[in-house]
Amino acid sequence: MRVYEIGEQGLLKRLQSFCPVDIIGDDAALLSVSEGYSLVVTTDTLVDGVHFSDRTTSPADAGWRAAAANLSDLAAMGAEPLGLTIGLGLPGDVEVCWVEQFYQGITDCLQPFATPIVGGDICRSPIITVSITALGQVLPDQAIRRSHAQPGDAIVVTGVHGASRAGLELLLHPEQGQGLSVEDRATVIRAHQRPQPRLDAVFLLRKILEQAAGRVAGMDSSDGLADAVLQLCRASRVGAQLERNLIPLPSCLTAWVSEAQAIDWALYGGEDFELVLCLPRFIAQKLVEQLHEAVMVGTITADSVVVLKDSSGLHPDEILSLDKGFQHFGQIG
Amino acid sequence: MRVYEIGEQGLLKRLQSFCPVDIIGDDAALLSVSEGYSLVVTTDTLVDGVHFSDRTTSPADAGWRAAAANLSDLAAMGAEPLGLTIGLGLPGDVEVCWVEQFYQGITDCLQPFATPIVGGDICRSPIITVSITALGQVLPDQAIRRSHAQPGDAIVVTGVHGASRAGLELLLHPEQGQGLSVEDRATVIRAHQRPQPRLDAVFLLRKILEQAAGRVAGMDSSDGLADAVLQLCRASRVGAQLERNLIPLPSCLTAWVSEAQAIDWALYGGEDFELVLCLPRFIAQKLVEQLHEAVMVGTITADSVVVLKDSSGLHPDEILSLDKGFQHFGQIG
Repeated sequence: MRVYEIGEQGLLKRLQSFCPVDIIGDDAALLSVSEGYSLVVTTDTLVDGVHFSDRTTSPADAGWRAAAANLSDLAAMGAEPLGLTIGLGLPGDVEVCWVEQFYQGITDCLQPFATPIVGGDICRSPIITVSITALGQVLPDQAIRRSHAQPGDAIVVTGVHGASRAGLELLLHPEQGQGLSVEDRATVIRAHQRPQPRLDAVFLLRKILEQAAGRVAGMDSSDGLADAVLQLCRASRVGAQLERNLIPLPSCLTAWVSEAQAIDWALYGGEDFELVLCLPRFIAQKLVEQLHEAVMVGTITADSVVVLKDSSGLHPDEILSLDKGFQHFGQIG
Repeated sequence: MRVYEIGEQGLLKRLQSFCPVDIIGDDAALLSVSEGYSLVVTTDTLVDGVHFSDRTTSPADAGWRAAAANLSDLAAMGAEPLGLTIGLGLPGDVEVCWVEQFYQGITDCLQPFATPIVGGDICRSPIITVSITALGQVLPDQAIRRSHAQPGDAIVVTGVHGASRAGLELLLHPEQGQGLSVEDRATVIRAHQRPQPRLDAVFLLRKILEQAAGRVAGMDSSDGLADAVLQLCRASRVGAQLERNLIPLPSCLTAWVSEAQAIDWALYGGEDFELVLCLPRFIAQKLVEQLHEAVMVGTITADSVVVLKDSSGLHPDEILSLDKGFQHFGQIG
């Protein structure tokens, strides 16, 4: 069954089963923000063939990834999620089950965080486009900002980098990575298809900060680890040193690609949706003790550049720049 | 200059001049919701060639209309606006000035309401798509709901209907309406290109309700007057009688099209973005006294249908249905 066969009203009726009943039927949804909290808002737009593709992403995975990217933006602000709105542009000949599976993927990603879909819009479009706005809340003094890093801060990442890019490689070229175990393949593919927004790290960090007040800067690594560190440094007018050998990589990569390739994926691959945090060292220490996959990967400096160091002396120092990162329109020109 | 020449970062930098400085540079924006207020959220997705077209709509007008549609949804909930997010999908060869003029149109529409653009996302897309999420706030007991109409309520519209549809007709067929004055042409074309969200009516209604407590049901007439009354009746499980001769039409229409055509545009044309309110009669009376373009056009009944009556006896009673309204996918099939 295709979308044009049931029309907008028919499709809306089916999609309403994914929303709480009390928010349906008015021109807008009503939501509560807790007293004293600030509202946090973030928007992402995704386009078929650019951000997802049937070749690598099922409709349910596309939905999951879209929701995860937005929850990750909330996590990057230190916020807890309140709800999501979804704007869908659909060609009339899209299968209704594509849309339902897409919504199912979103719902599956939101479920552990008890976050509802609170609104949406469907319209006709020659190509599938998805625009998601996520709403969250945070106490103003607990908001994580990009501009709050200071020289001496430890740089902590909440998990491995390069896994999503490795998973994409296997999806595009299944003949690669023959030496990998079935579990290893599944792990990196899952990292690409079902990334986890690190709201758990935010909750933990908040608990740590209740006992030991401290400043936190940070963002997520959706555009790669290099981009995150560079953006943080630019916003805070500082520099950074990253230790090449400390950057956590998926363990299976060494058996498959060169170290240089693995580091490249970690720095520039993107879509790992981990948090990159700049913290006073004693807070960072507590975080890595309590979050076992978190690692201190470097230090904020009073310098103006981001340097990738190799303490083993195998590689020369490298100055990172945004030019190597993902530029959405640069690819066309 | 085209978008691909300056890239995503270059375009973002230019568009940031349309946003307040303090919201730029983090993964999400922070906003304050007043104590005791509920957050109101609404989303619209627009696609080039479906919702706007260079033939009838300049980029600035497309931006204005997109913003107005969202502010109108907030007005329909009785809310005051807090901010807007904009998700843009753009082909690389779009002119940068198209995007800037689009943003200028949005900003011009928002300006009287001191409402900022608080976030956005730009991505590559084969076709221009725009997804806007509007955020507002309302005291929970002042929210206007579709489901609150009761038999005996007066139905009030805040202004003329059919003007936007008439303006579209002149844009598509400039040879039409030769008998119209230059001012009349400009008025209906402006109604189409620069519709006014009726937040002014909300403010006035709130003042009236401070002095005389009363229940309000309502929505906006973005999909036509018939659709609005039918949706209100469905949500409230009531019926309605509309008086054909009371529906306010743009005065110039009688000199141009038949009465039947004018009524058809008013009922089904859509995009007038007026409010359609159901109110106890004494509140309705106060509203039409103080809002000079507002008119009582009918009554909510305990019936299950919406009847268009003609007290002059010229036309037989007509039962309105949603089938004649705009169905986004129905047009394809």
